[in-house]
Amino acid sequence: MKIAIGQLNYRVGDIEQNLQKITDCCLKAIDNQVDLLIFSELALLGYPPKDLLSYKYYEKIQKSALEKLLALSTQCDIVVGGIYPNDKDYGNPYYNCAFFLSEGKIKNTIFKTLLPSYDVFDETRFFEPNQTFECIQSGQIKIALTICEDIWDNTEFKKYELAPLVKLNKQSPDLIINISASPFHSLKIKDRIELLRTKTKEFQLPAIYVNQVGAQTELIFDGNSFALNKDGSIAARCLAFEEDFKILDFEHQILSDTQVKLHTKSASNPLESIHKALIRGIKDYFQKNGFQKAVLGSSGGIDSALVQTLAVQALGAENVFALLMPSPYSSDHSVADAEELCKNLGNSYTIASISPLYVQAIESLYNIYGATDFDLTEENLQSRLRAVLLMAYSNKKGSLLLNTSNKSELAVGYGTLYGDMCGAISVIGDLYKTQVYELANFINIDNCIIPEAIITKEPSAELRPNQKDSDSLPDYELLDTILKLYIEEGKSPSELTDFGLNQKVVNQVLRLVHANEYKRFQAPPVLRVSQKAFGLGRNIPLTAKYPT
Amino acid sequence: MKIAIGQLNYRVGDIEQNLQKITDCCLKAIDNQVDLLIFSELALLGYPPKDLLSYKYYEKIQKSALEKLLALSTQCDIVVGGIYPNDKDYGNPYYNCAFFLSEGKIKNTIFKTLLPSYDVFDETRFFEPNQTFECIQSGQIKIALTICEDIWDNTEFKKYELAPLVKLNKQSPDLIINISASPFHSLKIKDRIELLRTKTKEFQLPAIYVNQVGAQTELIFDGNSFALNKDGSIAARCLAFEEDFKILDFEHQILSDTQVKLHTKSASNPLESIHKALIRGIKDYFQKNGFQKAVLGSSGGIDSALVQTLAVQALGAENVFALLMPSPYSSDHSVADAEELCKNLGNSYTIASISPLYVQAIESLYNIYGATDFDLTEENLQSRLRAVLLMAYSNKKGSLLLNTSNKSELAVGYGTLYGDMCGAISVIGDLYKTQVYELANFINIDNCIIPEAIITKEPSAELRPNQKDSDSLPDYELLDTILKLYIEEGKSPSELTDFGLNQKVVNQVLRLVHANEYKRFQAPPVLRVSQKAFGLGRNIPLTAKYPT
Repeated sequence: MKIAIGQLNYRVGDIEQNLQKITDCCLKAIDNQVDLLIFSELALLGYPPKDLLSYKYYEKIQKSALEKLLALSTQCDIVVGGIYPNDKDYGNPYYNCAFFLSEGKIKNTIFKTLLPSYDVFDETRFFEPNQTFECIQSGQIKIALTICEDIWDNTEFKKYELAPLVKLNKQSPDLIINISASPFHSLKIKDRIELLRTKTKEFQLPAIYVNQVGAQTELIFDGNSFALNKDGSIAARCLAFEEDFKILDFEHQILSDTQVKLHTKSASNPLESIHKALIRGIKDYFQKNGFQKAVLGSSGGIDSALVQTLAVQALGAENVFALLMPSPYSSDHSVADAEELCKNLGNSYTIASISPLYVQAIESLYNIYGATDFDLTEENLQSRLRAVLLMAYSNKKGSLLLNTSNKSELAVGYGTLYGDMCGAISVIGDLYKTQVYELANFINIDNCIIPEAIITKEPSAELRPNQKDSDSLPDYELLDTILKLYIEEGKSPSELTDFGLNQKVVNQVLRLVHANEYKRFQAPPVLRVSQKAFGLGRNIPLTAKYPT
Repeated sequence: MKIAIGQLNYRVGDIEQNLQKITDCCLKAIDNQVDLLIFSELALLGYPPKDLLSYKYYEKIQKSALEKLLALSTQCDIVVGGIYPNDKDYGNPYYNCAFFLSEGKIKNTIFKTLLPSYDVFDETRFFEPNQTFECIQSGQIKIALTICEDIWDNTEFKKYELAPLVKLNKQSPDLIINISASPFHSLKIKDRIELLRTKTKEFQLPAIYVNQVGAQTELIFDGNSFALNKDGSIAARCLAFEEDFKILDFEHQILSDTQVKLHTKSASNPLESIHKALIRGIKDYFQKNGFQKAVLGSSGGIDSALVQTLAVQALGAENVFALLMPSPYSSDHSVADAEELCKNLGNSYTIASISPLYVQAIESLYNIYGATDFDLTEENLQSRLRAVLLMAYSNKKGSLLLNTSNKSELAVGYGTLYGDMCGAISVIGDLYKTQVYELANFINIDNCIIPEAIITKEPSAELRPNQKDSDSLPDYELLDTILKLYIEEGKSPSELTDFGLNQKVVNQVLRLVHANEYKRFQAPPVLRVSQKAFGLGRNIPLTAKYPT
C-alpha cells in the first residue's frame, strides 16, 4: 500500500487557493497510484484561522471545497484537516477535524480532543473538544488518526486527563497518523520526533506525522513531516521550510520511503534552522500580503546588516533598498561599513544625511518648549526622523519597511517607539543580540557577506557622541542570560539569583523589561523562532505590577 | 444579618496595594457590624492577570496576603476572589476561586466552573474548570456562591453544558452571590441585571452581584454591583465607575439597602455611561502607570476636540497640553477653533506650524528619490512630522501622548501609521465617527464646551487642498452601519446586502477594512466601550484572505 504526505504552504482563509494546491497534490498522488494521501491540520482553511472563525463565510466555502475533493477520493483516499460545525445545543461553534474521504464519500470525521490554549494557541476560543474515539479504515489498514495536540497528552510541559492514543489503541490499529500545524521554534523539530518515538515504542506501531509548512504572519511552520517505524527508527523525512510530497510504502507494518534513501544526517544545526525559518518568514509575509519590495535603514551596525542580508536572501537583491542616514553623531566608519555590505549583497542604496532635517526639527521644538539640555528626546528624535524618511520611501515606492530591532533591545526598550521600532515585520525581533552575532557568523561561514568590521566593532546606537550600548546596558552575554530565564523560562526575579546572577543587575534589567511593555504593545509582528517570542503568545498586561 | 459589598478598583498584579484596599474595607465593615463582606472575582490579584500567571511569584504573594485577611475574618466573614493551585497531575496550573474566610479559617474554596475564552477573555489559558458543587454557610444562611461566567450558562450568545446554579440549588440555598470582573460595554449593564433577574425568578432566591470597578489598560470595569430580591426587583445598586461600599440587610430572604432609599431611576443613558467609562479609562491608565500629564495634537477637528475635553475632565486642565500644528494645507478656521476649545477648557497650548519642517523633509526626500507627484506620501508625511514633534514634547516633559483616532478611521485605515495613529492610549478608538458627534453633543448639553463650529464643519484631514473625508469615504452614517454589522455582529459581506446596503459600497468599505489590518496591529491600546473593540478581543490574522 502506498501512503503519501502532502506537505503544503497554505494561506489562512484562502480556501480556494489552498484547495487548488491540495487538488494538484491529489492529482500527483493519483498519477503515482497512491492509496492514501494525507494533508495537515486545518489544511483547507490554513492555520491559525483565529477570529476569522467568527464569520460563517468560511464554513460555507469549505463545504464546496470538500465537495470538489470528494470527486478525487474515488481514486485515492484522502485525509484533510478542516472545521466541522458543533451541532450540540451548547459549546463552541466548531470542531477542529480531519475529514477522511474515500470512494467519493466522507467516510469519517475525526475530531480533535486536546485543544491547546497556551502560548500562541487559542483553540478553546472556537473549538469544541472531542470525546469519542474511532479508528479509520483505508484499504486493509486500520489507522489511529489524531490531530496535532492529541499526541502531546503527557509531556514535561503540559499534561491532559485524556490520552487519545490509549483510547484508539483499544481498536488495534496498524498505524498512527498525526496531522499537525506545529509552528517552528529552535527546539521543536527534535521534540516532535522524540515524542512520537515514545508513542511508536509504547504502542508498537509505526507512525506518520504530517505538518503544515510556511509562515502565517509571525508564526513559521517548518514542515519537517516524517515517518517512524515501530522501533522508533526514522523511515522518511520531508523537507524543512519547503513544500514537499513524499510517497511511502507500507507493508507488514513497515514504512519505507519509495523515492530516496533515508538520509541519516541528524537534526540540522539550530542556526541553520533559524536561518531558513527567517527566510521563509520574510518570503511568505511578502508573498501572502502581495508585496515584492523591501526597504530598510542600514546603519552599519550588526542588526540592520543581518536583516538586510536575510532580506536579500529571501527577496533577491533587486527587491531590497537600503537607506543610509547618518546623523551628526554617526561615526565615520558606519557609512563605509554599510556601503560595503550593500556592495557585497548587490542591493541598491542611497546615502542621505538626516542632519538638515534634525537641525530644523530642533529649531521647531525650540519654538515649542524653549531651550533644554540634550537628553533622550534628541536621541529619539534622530531615530524618528529616520523613520519618517523610511516610511515616505515606503509609501512612495510601495516597499515594505523591515524592522531591525533584536530581542534584547525589545526586551529592555533600547529602541525608539515610532523610530527604529517601525516596520511592517520584525525580522530578528526574536533573536537575542548574542544570537544575532551567531547567525551573522553562520551566514559568513563560507563567504564573508557581512563585513568583518560590522561584526567586530562595539555595538552603538550612535545617537550621541561616543555612545556605546555598554554605557546603559550590561554585557550582552549577561543580559541575554537574564532575559532568557525571565521571558522564556518564566523564572521569577527572586529565582534568578539562584542561577548565580547578581541581584542588582537582575533588578536593573527587569526594571527595564517592565517599564517597556508599552513599547512592545505597538511593535510590529515578530517572526517567532524561540519558545517565547514577544507578541503573539506572550500576553503580559501593559498596566500592572510585575514580579519582583 | 448584614451583608456588605466591597466594590473596589484594583491594579493587576499589585497584591500588596489591593490587599490594603481590601483591608481598609474590612475594617469599615467591622465598624459597621457587618456579618459578611463580599469582594469581586480575583480581587487579590486584579483582573485580568493574563500571562502574569506564568510567574509563580503571585501565588506566593497572595498566600501571605490571605494570611493577613484571615485575621480579620474572626470579626466578619469575607468572600474574596483569588487563584488556587491545581493539585491534580494534569490540567492548567490554577483554579479561579472564591475564598470564604470565617472565624480565622479558610472555610471553603469555591472554584469557577465556566471559563470564558471568547472575546477579551482567555481563562482557559491558566485556569482549570471546577466540577464539584457545594454551598457555603455564613451565620444562619446558606449561599450559592458563583464566580462571574458561572451564572451565564445559557444566554443567546453562549451556552454551556453545565449550569452551576442548578447544581447548587439542590442544596437549598437562601441566597445567590456572584462575584464578577465583568468589563463594561454599552449594553452590558442592562444585560447583567436581566440575566440575574431570570435566575432569581427561576430559583426563587435573592441575589447579590459584586463587580470589579476601574480600568485595566483597555478594559474598563464599571462596578455597578447590585442586589435583587427573589421577585427580580432591585434591592440595591452601587455606583457606576467608582469605588463603593454598600451594606444590605438580609432578613427572611429579603434584601434591603440599609443606607439609602432605592433610586428607581432606570439604567443610565448609554452616552452617559460611555462618557464616564472613558474618563475612568483615562484616569486609571495614567494613575496606574504613574503619569500625571498628557499632551495631544489639537487640529480643530471633532476627534481631537473630544479627546482633549475628556482628558481635561479626567486629568484636570492643568495636566493637559495641546499642540496646534497647522500645515500648509490647514484651513484658517482650524487654529481658531482649536484655540477657542483650549480657552473653553482652560488647558495650556502652543501653536507651532509644521511648514518649515515639512519643507525640509520634502527636500531631504527629493535627495532620496528625486521629483515625484504629490500623493499619499506627502499627506502621511505631515501627519508623521506632527507625531515627531508630539513625541519629542512627550519625551521632554514626561507627558503621555493621547491618541485621537476614532473607530471608523481605524477600521478603514483613514489615518497615518506612526503619524496620527501614535499615542500611549487611544481614547475614542472604540467610538464610530457618528458616536463621536453624539458624545460631543452630550457633553455640550448644559454648557457649550466644544465650539459649535468644530461640531458642524465638514470633517477633513486637511492634508491636501480642500480635502474632505467624503472624498474618500462614504457618508459616516452609512459607513458606520456597515462597520458595525461586520465588526461587531460578525456578518459576512454577502449577508450585508440583506440589510439593504449597496454591494459596491459594502465591498469598497470592507476592502479598506481588510487592507488595514497591519495598521491596527501597531495601534495603541483602545479603551473598550463596545461589544467588539479593535485590539484585545478581536484576533483577526494580519496575513489572510478575508471574507467576501
